[in-house]
Amino acid sequence: MIRRLCIIGVGLIGGSLARALRKAKVCDYVVGAGRNPDNLRKGVELGVIDHYELDTARAVEGADVVVVAVPLGAMEAVFKAISDGLEPDAVITDVGSAKRIVTTAARSAFGAVPRNLVPGHPIAGTEKSGVTASFESLFRNRQVILTPDSETSPIAVERVRRMWEATGATVVEMDADHHDEVLAATSHLPHILAYSLVDMLGRTEGQNEIFRYAAGGFRDFTRIASSDPQMWHDIFIANGEAILGVLESFERELGTIIAAIRAGDGETIKDVLVRAKTLRDRYAANSGGENEG
Amino acid sequence: MIRRLCIIGVGLIGGSLARALRKAKVCDYVVGAGRNPDNLRKGVELGVIDHYELDTARAVEGADVVVVAVPLGAMEAVFKAISDGLEPDAVITDVGSAKRIVTTAARSAFGAVPRNLVPGHPIAGTEKSGVTASFESLFRNRQVILTPDSETSPIAVERVRRMWEATGATVVEMDADHHDEVLAATSHLPHILAYSLVDMLGRTEGQNEIFRYAAGGFRDFTRIASSDPQMWHDIFIANGEAILGVLESFERELGTIIAAIRAGDGETIKDVLVRAKTLRDRYAANSGGENEG
Repeated sequence: MIRRLCIIGVGLIGGSLARALRKAKVCDYVVGAGRNPDNLRKGVELGVIDHYELDTARAVEGADVVVVAVPLGAMEAVFKAISDGLEPDAVITDVGSAKRIVTTAARSAFGAVPRNLVPGHPIAGTEKSGVTASFESLFRNRQVILTPDSETSPIAVERVRRMWEATGATVVEMDADHHDEVLAATSHLPHILAYSLVDMLGRTEGQNEIFRYAAGGFRDFTRIASSDPQMWHDIFIANGEAILGVLESFERELGTIIAAIRAGDGETIKDVLVRAKTLRDRYAANSGGENEG
Repeated sequence: MIRRLCIIGVGLIGGSLARALRKAKVCDYVVGAGRNPDNLRKGVELGVIDHYELDTARAVEGADVVVVAVPLGAMEAVFKAISDGLEPDAVITDVGSAKRIVTTAARSAFGAVPRNLVPGHPIAGTEKSGVTASFESLFRNRQVILTPDSETSPIAVERVRRMWEATGATVVEMDADHHDEVLAATSHLPHILAYSLVDMLGRTEGQNEIFRYAAGGFRDFTRIASSDPQMWHDIFIANGEAILGVLESFERELGTIIAAIRAGDGETIKDVLVRAKTLRDRYAANSGGENEG
């Protein structure tokens, strides 16, 4: 049970979390904080939050759980800003898509990583952003990865775990560096490829015509290129090392298929395609069908 | 009006075309042909075709319209096989995803490109294949590109255009080479990237775990990697030159973002992301919303 929840950054993720916790009746009161008063007012109007504060230090006063749901690049500044207002036993968590950076930011802001800080990452989202895009079922049947370390308070971990479970998510714990490598491969690299493809097409002569003849496959493939540029800029910077590692593997893979096309080497092409299709079909079957979010 | 339609290759595209034309009541009788008797029997059972022939030369006898809906690599062999059975005034069209190769295959099979051959490409499809995946509305509000040249019979072009319009599609004409360049960018390259990404992840240590933490964005991005490997193998071979050209541009674009990540150059990253999001949002708005196929 959360008495007073403070959500800093009431966007798609922060807003959906508040909605889900209210729906599950595990949260008495929600304070929203952020930099955009219009968005926060909208959050109050929509019943996502009870009230809002533009001063984050004041927003966290009295809160027993604080969720930092801001782009990764703003994390350290938010930690600094709240350090004066935080209750001594408040549990802090975040929803960032890279996790090593969060403890680094906390160490820098607080002097040491607070034992009550439980870095977290709900593997859920859409390409939309802002509180108006939030919805209460966003985390249902989704995974949430927590990356506590040996210093983290087990009680804090347990509270954050229960919070996410109340939204319908499954919670797993993982080493922060491992999280960053896995997500670089399954999320950050695909975003780079989609953004790069769309930007490349935009530089191509006759780009309006090109987009006109794009089909459903293209639409699905590039959907993630409609995601929030600020958020993804921060992720690419924050998780650069892991991303560069996986990009190197990808370029090698791409080199193989380019060489095969150049050489008319159908066997190699076929091998790649058959392996990929087999894996993708297995993934789709295991993850519950094509039509679920 | 089509008296007797012969569809060679009764799969997702061929089957959906037959369904759509029956629904529109512009086709009296449909003969299916192909190599897989089980699939063809299924086509008869489902009412997609009236009867089937395994011998393609016999299948085209008496047909006034012949649609070749086989993978590009089989096109020349099919043209050769039907050349004895074709009615002199039969209109021939195809549905291949690359168009220059079709006239090349026809020239080789028939000795010269038949004036009644109208190469075509419906920009529609899903990652599924086979007649069981076919459905009558597949082409509704989709674009079909025809690539006749100066030698092509205008009457044949008109018949093929009317056939596609009866399915609810919009028909445009385009130079074959231009078609191949546009599709390399919007379709063939995305397929290469999706197949490559999934294959790369499959080679990664701990790949089962990696797929477990993939989210909705990954699912959309990689959906096209579930497409038919034979069909796409043939496309990559058939349209190699245009694909290699666009791959070169893509690698340059990727190089820019890799260099920016390595250098921590947030401004360049942000520029790419903002440009891509703007374009992708505009494309989504113009192409009728996210939720249409």
